[in-house]
Amino acid sequence: MGFQSNVLHLMLAERLSDEIGQGLWAPGQRLPSVRELGRSHAVSVTTVLAAYRTLEDRRLIESRPKKGYFVRGPASRQTPRKSAMDAAGPAAGLTPGPLDPDALTSMEGRPDVVSFGTALCGDALFPVEALARAIASTARRHSGLLAAVSFSPGAPRLRESIASHAANWNCHLAPDEVLVTNGCVEAFGLCLQTVAKPGEAVIVESPAYYGYLSTLAQLGMRPLPVRFQDREAAAIDEIERLAREHRIGACLLATAVSNPSGASLGDATRAALVERLDALAIPLIEDATFSDLHVDAVQRAAKSYDRSGNVLLCSSLSKTLAPGLRLGWVSGGRHHRALVELKRTMSIGQPLVIQEAVGQFLHGGGYRHHLRRLRSRCRAQVDETLAHLRGCVPPGTSLREPDGGYLLWMGLPPGVSADALARRAYAQGIAVAPGTLFSPDCDYDDHLRLNCGYPLDERRRVALTRLGEWIGDAAR
Amino acid sequence: MGFQSNVLHLMLAERLSDEIGQGLWAPGQRLPSVRELGRSHAVSVTTVLAAYRTLEDRRLIESRPKKGYFVRGPASRQTPRKSAMDAAGPAAGLTPGPLDPDALTSMEGRPDVVSFGTALCGDALFPVEALARAIASTARRHSGLLAAVSFSPGAPRLRESIASHAANWNCHLAPDEVLVTNGCVEAFGLCLQTVAKPGEAVIVESPAYYGYLSTLAQLGMRPLPVRFQDREAAAIDEIERLAREHRIGACLLATAVSNPSGASLGDATRAALVERLDALAIPLIEDATFSDLHVDAVQRAAKSYDRSGNVLLCSSLSKTLAPGLRLGWVSGGRHHRALVELKRTMSIGQPLVIQEAVGQFLHGGGYRHHLRRLRSRCRAQVDETLAHLRGCVPPGTSLREPDGGYLLWMGLPPGVSADALARRAYAQGIAVAPGTLFSPDCDYDDHLRLNCGYPLDERRRVALTRLGEWIGDAAR
Repeated sequence: MGFQSNVLHLMLAERLSDEIGQGLWAPGQRLPSVRELGRSHAVSVTTVLAAYRTLEDRRLIESRPKKGYFVRGPASRQTPRKSAMDAAGPAAGLTPGPLDPDALTSMEGRPDVVSFGTALCGDALFPVEALARAIASTARRHSGLLAAVSFSPGAPRLRESIASHAANWNCHLAPDEVLVTNGCVEAFGLCLQTVAKPGEAVIVESPAYYGYLSTLAQLGMRPLPVRFQDREAAAIDEIERLAREHRIGACLLATAVSNPSGASLGDATRAALVERLDALAIPLIEDATFSDLHVDAVQRAAKSYDRSGNVLLCSSLSKTLAPGLRLGWVSGGRHHRALVELKRTMSIGQPLVIQEAVGQFLHGGGYRHHLRRLRSRCRAQVDETLAHLRGCVPPGTSLREPDGGYLLWMGLPPGVSADALARRAYAQGIAVAPGTLFSPDCDYDDHLRLNCGYPLDERRRVALTRLGEWIGDAAR
Repeated sequence: MGFQSNVLHLMLAERLSDEIGQGLWAPGQRLPSVRELGRSHAVSVTTVLAAYRTLEDRRLIESRPKKGYFVRGPASRQTPRKSAMDAAGPAAGLTPGPLDPDALTSMEGRPDVVSFGTALCGDALFPVEALARAIASTARRHSGLLAAVSFSPGAPRLRESIASHAANWNCHLAPDEVLVTNGCVEAFGLCLQTVAKPGEAVIVESPAYYGYLSTLAQLGMRPLPVRFQDREAAAIDEIERLAREHRIGACLLATAVSNPSGASLGDATRAALVERLDALAIPLIEDATFSDLHVDAVQRAAKSYDRSGNVLLCSSLSKTLAPGLRLGWVSGGRHHRALVELKRTMSIGQPLVIQEAVGQFLHGGGYRHHLRRLRSRCRAQVDETLAHLRGCVPPGTSLREPDGGYLLWMGLPPGVSADALARRAYAQGIAVAPGTLFSPDCDYDDHLRLNCGYPLDERRRVALTRLGEWIGDAAR
């Protein structure tokens, strides 16, 4: 069962919930059988079951053994919820297969799973209503956009908004220096294909976002991890040493609020990195996906130090505006024209109606305000999670506050294996990302990445408490 | 100036036109200067000029030398239009640079160009209003989709609709055998990356859609053109011979209504091709983009003969539903899982709100009816163009009716160079695609591809007449 059928079950649950709210189903009335509803809505039995489970969770319906599903009365809907974990209990006992990013995404949003495993967020963090209105009004008012193709580099108004936003990072880009992509993942993939060759090595930060590692694997490039945290000057020297030993095609890293570590480089390091890589003729692919979520708000991009066009700056609206838009971008320095051609050849461009709607939304000026609100919400969710964790993890667990965003990179006490812990958690319906996913050599078995992108409700609290207990068990 | 600013100028023109219609600008009133309007709408001077030119074309405004642009009175708006070509005349004298597909797309939709150069269509052919409503209602009712990510393989309802549509081609696919892509271009690109290696040769039909050739160039693969038309059995033997001499990674072609030739393979050839390629262990990448536009409607896909999973069937909704959706798909046979992973790694997936809206639209059942209407409209536009051309081209011009779709592949009289003709036409504001674009060796300098995707209005008739005259000049 993938993430998609999951979205489908939520849509079905929403529809049924509306119908119950409108009184189309009376309290006590029996709902259609799983099979009937699946047939009438052309969805699978699994999807219907998941939808019914969601509604059970919301106390809108109840299942009666061997009888089916029934609408609850308004009174019974107000009965206090059972402990969330008790509810999750019976549905647990998952066998998620290999510990990999696909397993994490496939568990996301399942009603029987409490997920801390991905870097997705709750929609409460995003201005989805305003974006939906913008898309709806753009579609209705300019239906001709559906017949028009936006060839790479993308819609001008969107590129103008992105270029002027980049000025916050001290990057002064013209709209023509911006290429719109299918998220940042496509952006850095295009960069790698443009500047590096299969067989070459690519320097990545350590720990590295697992998306870097899978893209490199697909492209037949070798990741060379370099740790920057607490040793920024040494890391730059290490790059110089590696460049003597390897054929290095590029250096790919986040310079602010790195995923998973939550760490950021200092300005001096950013400048030195740009200078050193230029001298070594190694293109720098800078990932600014989380830059705007830094608690200090304004982060200077390494790109702002670039004089030779050697820095390819990639970013995305997925973590700051809404992941479902599938809008990322890249400003490729002296490689820009090649990137534009590669995108145009390989996938033409992103849907114009979404580009225009988002271009207008950004142009409207509410984005800065939204970012301020988003930053403080992320910080609040992270702080709340940290506070809760401090009360339930054993000594020796390292809980460092990230520089921003909503990902926690948690160090485990000596002897505790993140992989083993993650497997135990999976089996109990709790998804976490073991540190080994962020290293080509399965390092970081002593770390977990925890997603604080959803509000810390009772169910998540209980899951964290359990996780703390299991860490304690393993540390003994 | 790219195609994008073009869309922008149309949006600006539409807005001004609305404002004039609502009386916000009185007849005789002077409009803002080009510079002012550019500043207030954050668009370039070129965009404003193009917007004003569009409104002039619609007789809504007029320019008065050295005075600016003024709103016309309702009376003067009804004066008969000048000859379209006279209007285009003064703006002509283009220097479009190299003759390549990008030049063609950049000329598309410019008010000073009559374009027959691309394979885009007028929005009159597509149900854009209904699709716009579907997108608007999906966005408003399920704004949460904007926060959700649709990981490859794509939204289940859309994949279900696509799978059931493929049954028309005798292909019985499960929804799990369908991967949603960013158009067919991304689909066949993913296939090539999955089954073939850089340095390998790929058999393409001759003439070949130029998108095949640019994708192969980007991937470092060598096109090996094989002509099928009027020699289908010989072509299959030729493939067998080529396989002895070259390392062949794949065979990529359209089996029905090929672009540009408009030709289709016979069922026997489709079956034989599948069998022979399977024996040679050469994967067949089948492009069914235009299959549903065949005049005989139901075309059997080569994929329907596939027993070993060696056929990767690609298609798109761009030519049959709407190009701006950026929705294509592939069913990759035994390579399917690798394709899904490649798409997920390289660009995650397409925007969910569009997938859900289109999934519901297709599910609604109006698609078959739309396709019938679309086929007959295309046929009418092609026939009208052929009839007009027959009256104005010199003897020796070959005008073959395509099997479907809206592209004409026109053979020129002996001694006439399509390249030279295309350059002369460009300079006069008429865009046509010379045959050389459809061959890796610049063959087919004796052919032109003409797009009949727009209604044949007076302006297009005049342009075709001129083209006929120039062919006559060159044939002398």
